[in-house]
Amino acid sequence: MVEKLSDAARGKALASLVEWRYEAGDDAIFRDFKFADFSEAFAFMARVALLAEKAGHHPEWSNTYNKVTITLTTHDAGGLSDKDVSLATAIDKLLA
Amino acid sequence: MVEKLSDAARGKALASLVEWRYEAGDDAIFRDFKFADFSEAFAFMARVALLAEKAGHHPEWSNTYNKVTITLTTHDAGGLSDKDVSLATAIDKLLA
Repeated sequence: MVEKLSDAARGKALASLVEWRYEAGDDAIFRDFKFADFSEAFAFMARVALLAEKAGHHPEWSNTYNKVTITLTTHDAGGLSDKDVSLATAIDKLLA
Repeated sequence: MVEKLSDAARGKALASLVEWRYEAGDDAIFRDFKFADFSEAFAFMARVALLAEKAGHHPEWSNTYNKVTITLTTHDAGGLSDKDVSLATAIDKLLA
């Protein structure tokens, strides 16, 4: 079973996820992405979908034309978990 | 240039889009979709993305695991236009 991160573990994780913002109310992290156009945005989404399916952990996300917003939290754990940190890190690597 | 639909034209269009709900405040239509899992939901999204790119008209949409919500409006027209009706009809056909 996945457990939500302790305050200390979350603080450490967030320090390495500099592009992500923390939402305390939902114990979630989110990041906004902007691309040249819809084609680039959806290509990115397809890659994130593959990462998510492979990880067995899925984002809450939205898209409007060239913009994508991804929110990560672990409902089973009641908040942010290692699964979110791993997926966020993998998403960041797509754009590195 | 695309124009927003008149009240009469919108009423006629909505009568044929029985699965879509009309949001008067945004002059938009939206529909919620539910699939077996993320894989099916994203496969649907990929097909919608192709329709949207072909039409040159894109949805505002969100996904959480097996659920997808699609909102259609035409910002250039200031509301619902023929482009939205065409895309909604094409999306419906994917599931027919």
